[in-house]
Amino acid sequence: MAFSLPTYEAPDFSGRKLRDCPPVAFAKVRKTGVAPENYHATSIYPEYFHLGDGPWRLLEESRMDCVVVLEKNGTLAAMESRHLRKGDLVALGRKENGEEGIYVHTKGFDFSPNGTDKFAFRTQFTRETSFSIDYDQLYDLLQFERRNGFIVWVLGPAVSFDKDAREAFVAMVERGYVHALLAGNALAVHDVEGALYGTALGQDIYTKRTTPLGHYKHLDAIRVVRSHGSIRKAIRAGVIPDGIMRAVVGKQVECVLAGSIRDDGPLPEVIGDVYEAQDRMRALTKRATTVIALATQLHAIATGNLVPSYRVTRRKTVRPVYFYTVDMSEFAVNKLANRGSLTAHSILTNVQDFVVTVERGLRRRKHGE
Amino acid sequence: MAFSLPTYEAPDFSGRKLRDCPPVAFAKVRKTGVAPENYHATSIYPEYFHLGDGPWRLLEESRMDCVVVLEKNGTLAAMESRHLRKGDLVALGRKENGEEGIYVHTKGFDFSPNGTDKFAFRTQFTRETSFSIDYDQLYDLLQFERRNGFIVWVLGPAVSFDKDAREAFVAMVERGYVHALLAGNALAVHDVEGALYGTALGQDIYTKRTTPLGHYKHLDAIRVVRSHGSIRKAIRAGVIPDGIMRAVVGKQVECVLAGSIRDDGPLPEVIGDVYEAQDRMRALTKRATTVIALATQLHAIATGNLVPSYRVTRRKTVRPVYFYTVDMSEFAVNKLANRGSLTAHSILTNVQDFVVTVERGLRRRKHGE
Amino acid sequence: MAFSLPTYEAPDFSGRKLRDCPPVAFAKVRKTGVAPENYHATSIYPEYFHLGDGPWRLLEESRMDCVVVLEKNGTLAAMESRHLRKGDLVALGRKENGEEGIYVHTKGFDFSPNGTDKFAFRTQFTRETSFSIDYDQLYDLLQFERRNGFIVWVLGPAVSFDKDAREAFVAMVERGYVHALLAGNALAVHDVEGALYGTALGQDIYTKRTTPLGHYKHLDAIRVVRSHGSIRKAIRAGVIPDGIMRAVVGKQVECVLAGSIRDDGPLPEVIGDVYEAQDRMRALTKRATTVIALATQLHAIATGNLVPSYRVTRRKTVRPVYFYTVDMSEFAVNKLANRGSLTAHSILTNVQDFVVTVERGLRRRKHGE
Amino acid sequence: MAFSLPTYEAPDFSGRKLRDCPPVAFAKVRKTGVAPENYHATSIYPEYFHLGDGPWRLLEESRMDCVVVLEKNGTLAAMESRHLRKGDLVALGRKENGEEGIYVHTKGFDFSPNGTDKFAFRTQFTRETSFSIDYDQLYDLLQFERRNGFIVWVLGPAVSFDKDAREAFVAMVERGYVHALLAGNALAVHDVEGALYGTALGQDIYTKRTTPLGHYKHLDAIRVVRSHGSIRKAIRAGVIPDGIMRAVVGKQVECVLAGSIRDDGPLPEVIGDVYEAQDRMRALTKRATTVIALATQLHAIATGNLVPSYRVTRRKTVRPVYFYTVDMSEFAVNKLANRGSLTAHSILTNVQDFVVTVERGLRRRKHGE
Repeated sequence: MAFSLPTYEAPDFSGRKLRDCPPVAFAKVRKTGVAPENYHATSIYPEYFHLGDGPWRLLEESRMDCVVVLEKNGTLAAMESRHLRKGDLVALGRKENGEEGIYVHTKGFDFSPNGTDKFAFRTQFTRETSFSIDYDQLYDLLQFERRNGFIVWVLGPAVSFDKDAREAFVAMVERGYVHALLAGNALAVHDVEGALYGTALGQDIYTKRTTPLGHYKHLDAIRVVRSHGSIRKAIRAGVIPDGIMRAVVGKQVECVLAGSIRDDGPLPEVIGDVYEAQDRMRALTKRATTVIALATQLHAIATGNLVPSYRVTRRKTVRPVYFYTVDMSEFAVNKLANRGSLTAHSILTNVQDFVVTVERGLRRRKHGE
Repeated sequence: MAFSLPTYEAPDFSGRKLRDCPPVAFAKVRKTGVAPENYHATSIYPEYFHLGDGPWRLLEESRMDCVVVLEKNGTLAAMESRHLRKGDLVALGRKENGEEGIYVHTKGFDFSPNGTDKFAFRTQFTRETSFSIDYDQLYDLLQFERRNGFIVWVLGPAVSFDKDAREAFVAMVERGYVHALLAGNALAVHDVEGALYGTALGQDIYTKRTTPLGHYKHLDAIRVVRSHGSIRKAIRAGVIPDGIMRAVVGKQVECVLAGSIRDDGPLPEVIGDVYEAQDRMRALTKRATTVIALATQLHAIATGNLVPSYRVTRRKTVRPVYFYTVDMSEFAVNKLANRGSLTAHSILTNVQDFVVTVERGLRRRKHGE
Repeated sequence: MAFSLPTYEAPDFSGRKLRDCPPVAFAKVRKTGVAPENYHATSIYPEYFHLGDGPWRLLEESRMDCVVVLEKNGTLAAMESRHLRKGDLVALGRKENGEEGIYVHTKGFDFSPNGTDKFAFRTQFTRETSFSIDYDQLYDLLQFERRNGFIVWVLGPAVSFDKDAREAFVAMVERGYVHALLAGNALAVHDVEGALYGTALGQDIYTKRTTPLGHYKHLDAIRVVRSHGSIRKAIRAGVIPDGIMRAVVGKQVECVLAGSIRDDGPLPEVIGDVYEAQDRMRALTKRATTVIALATQLHAIATGNLVPSYRVTRRKTVRPVYFYTVDMSEFAVNKLANRGSLTAHSILTNVQDFVVTVERGLRRRKHGE
Repeated sequence: MAFSLPTYEAPDFSGRKLRDCPPVAFAKVRKTGVAPENYHATSIYPEYFHLGDGPWRLLEESRMDCVVVLEKNGTLAAMESRHLRKGDLVALGRKENGEEGIYVHTKGFDFSPNGTDKFAFRTQFTRETSFSIDYDQLYDLLQFERRNGFIVWVLGPAVSFDKDAREAFVAMVERGYVHALLAGNALAVHDVEGALYGTALGQDIYTKRTTPLGHYKHLDAIRVVRSHGSIRKAIRAGVIPDGIMRAVVGKQVECVLAGSIRDDGPLPEVIGDVYEAQDRMRALTKRATTVIALATQLHAIATGNLVPSYRVTRRKTVRPVYFYTVDMSEFAVNKLANRGSLTAHSILTNVQDFVVTVERGLRRRKHGE
């Protein structure tokens, strides 16, 4: 099955409903980092702004919970309030249907609806939901995105805790299915621990045996990297024989390691300031066309906050951004949904199985099965 | 890696500790279904009884929470109290080290221990535990058991809810990896629903689309089977084109479908009396050498209650019984452990992935990879 | 806050849409236990049947997944297919808006809707949902139902595992807040175990210490009851000093203990045939006006299957049936929802806390705080 | 029941085993932030160091995964590697029984053991474990600690999502049961949102109704605080009428709000650099005698990393540090255990119920019931 992007249908601005809308108002920021009252906040959907001087303008590179700034060069930018400077022009208005020159477009892509019986089973999404089609669609999607998109993976440490999953992820990096990696200190620490000692938190990642002095292993791994100055330098020095970080560095995959208060160490590449880390994550999510978040509530929600439902391509077409979350608990998945994030695809399973299955599926596809 | 059974080391009854133990006492049942006071209750371990007239006798075909009856022909039987008849001779004594002629042998098989640091990480078993080795061992085990053992699968309905998982299980049945199936009405109902309409509870098992009038589908499936008189007859009549039940019937896999108060229908083969169902399940678990329970708390716990940690082979050697539980929640797994069941191997994942992965792994092995 | 029942608005059968509908067709059962083709299956909603000879008739005492039988005396009965006898007249038709003489009325009670923003947070129901109002409403509801309704509690064994929860439930029984109890063998076994030995599965229900020979305690409890002949007789004999079963028997609360394949024993009152148990449960749920299911997936789903969203009172008014499920996992709650059960109120918490909190809240209310 | 601290039994350093141990070796740090090879890493237990010149020295103010530095003034300090400066003297040795002059003392406090049957039920800790005694002990403990200890609460945002829980926590702050608060941006944001609009993420914290434009509420709350310059200033200005932050500021409870990549805003008091935040958290956990972590995996694990099992009082006695985690999932609790954290007391329940129950229990106690 060949993959093709769904068509995007822009709103009809010449139609009666939107033709006569007023232009959007802007107000100046009076205090750095504080939006003016009645500021408009962005959603995950394409939003159009009527600037009064021509066609409605689509906000590119959006994310939810931002304000919209009219920049000096005339472009519109979705900006976190903390980045506002005195004098910035911020769009005002909270109506969503054009009444204030803002139109939130929730139906740009056609996703066919479900039945309309008065009484129906299985309206909720659980671990008992069928996932066969999700895997098949994901193989198609990743093969397409490998060449035509930007695939961002968000990884919890669990992926480095299991030998097969770790190797499968490395294989996907090496075959070009990973364009960016968002993770925390722990993923990198335990991946390096695996490379140096074959363990994660002191437990063998294959045999599961607890190593003697196991609680030193991750500290020793951190020490080795810190003594070399960075993960990159340690890899160059040849002391990290395998693993995710080595593959990511070797393939020049873009990578943000964001710090958290749980961290030991940290490793030198980890960004300690979370707002700087968030900005760097957003620099990557702006380019994302598919995001896959595995077994990490913290990073999955953080990334979910940053990713809109659409992306404007270089040729100025609008395409969807696909967002997958893979987790063991309905709670984690619902929590993301409750933050308003786009989670069209959730797969409730162990990420070890998920990663191994996806890698095998992609390999099988390639070999023409 | 070739699989081989671990050696069993029987207790040393000639040694000082056990040589001079008294014989076990028996008392007569005075009321049907009621054990005498101070009855001995079985565990999951091999238990030996000193009958006074020769060597200590190993209780064969045990299960936990039973009493031990000395039958007229001189054999010992582990029996549920409800089956006691007036006059039956029941073993007495609750000491476990021979003091009362009973020896509970917990260390017959050598499973190497873990480390002994004072301070250690990862002593608990969770979804973040590595499972690579479990899969590899399971492939070895199932290939061995296929010819040399008796593999009992315990299935929750979820296996029939997903196209790939359903097909993978069918493939394992057809290639001889399933010797007995324990399940409930729902597994069979939704499997037949899948065969007739491609749905489970009205939802397409591949596309996940809700069918119009979806809440009729399982009722219609039940109706079709009941109108034919039984699953077997419906299959013979050619109305069930595929699925687990068809494969199980076709391969003459032994099967117990146990009723529950949740059931619609039920299908004709389902046993409505749960204690009769339990007896029939035990007739199969007595022969079990490996048990794999998937996504069903009710049936997994019920089966866990019935399965001891060992089995006496025809050649009178003692071998372990392997018990795997696959579930999404630590709670389900812990609950089984808290009932005292042997759960040497728990895999925390979605059974859809588990079944598909195991089937592929077995296939790959066979093809010599 | 005084509690009052919401008003029920019947459909307007004199209106254009329904006035000219045809009467519902019936077909005869040709094989015992098998409905005729195109049978109508009930939902949880009030359903009206046009019999041609006067006003549309409301189906009383409904439950989902039943067929509708026109009995000889002219009344309509929602009946499980397994109870159909040859010659029974079964309603036909699967259209829900009167086209075939059947009207499924989903909007009889006014429950105010939520907002309609295009973009909204917190549309899912999770452990982080606020529950203060649920408790307050429950106090009001239970005080009302105590005198005016029929409160059915569905209990998993966990309620008997904790001293405070067990005592709180007993207090509610004694003060008239429990009209019927649905549970399994385990609830009764561990409650009696608590009465006799202060333990549950061998663990002290207050100190949590494991008793020596703890794995005998539930078997001993079963033995004591069986030797007396029944729970009732054991209570009368004075050997069960306290607990839920004693309170239930003492207050003549109606009680169904349904068997399952997990059971040890069972206790004499437990019904081994699950379909007979289901029938007995339904005899009680027909009278239910409020159902509260605590920490039991099996019994909660079984009861959910039996309980419609409404009840016709003696004075022939229609009132809602309130259904609460209390569980620790979103999965359990979603599973119930996916079976189509009415779960307007789910509380995600530990039932120990729930029972203790409700009992204290009711007591506080009574004392005029 | 009056609460009393358990007695601490120091190791017998005059005994044979420890008398002749060598003194511990130290090595100089050669690169800032990098420990010398063979560094000793701390555990959660009291650790003694033999300095050669007198009695063994107990490491005060420990935490796990630190190195031990001999400071110029002769004291020993547990220090994160990242704080090491060139020339610092770091203790070497990984043996735990004095062989290298280091003794890890795991048995200083007497906690009575459990049974030793060969076969036992309920060895795992789950939602079905009884919690009555934990509540009773917690009341005693908190009453004692209120005057004699330092109680640190670690809060996830859920506590601010529910009206009753939020009020109960405020009441505990006001009555002196909260000496320090560790939380993230979200707890403060939604608490202020509750004060300003009665909502959390746009949902009414009592009625659960979704407010129109609900997804603006937390952004508006952030804006209000930022426009005032800080939470403190906003409170002083009178715009925050109630809630946790107001109570905490009013009672001068010490507070660290640590940033994360999930944050909107952030509020001005939030510390963006996670390692600085960790240091500030440790400054408070050094004083902690009881820690209670509610519904926050991130902050609970972070705090668990920082808290040792003991504390040296001003009068140089050694007492235990009590650590409670309250969460809905066995996974969260196990995860903490797998990090080696001391989690003697875990309560599996909804924190809303927990907070309300504890507050009521303390109040009842005080009134002499």
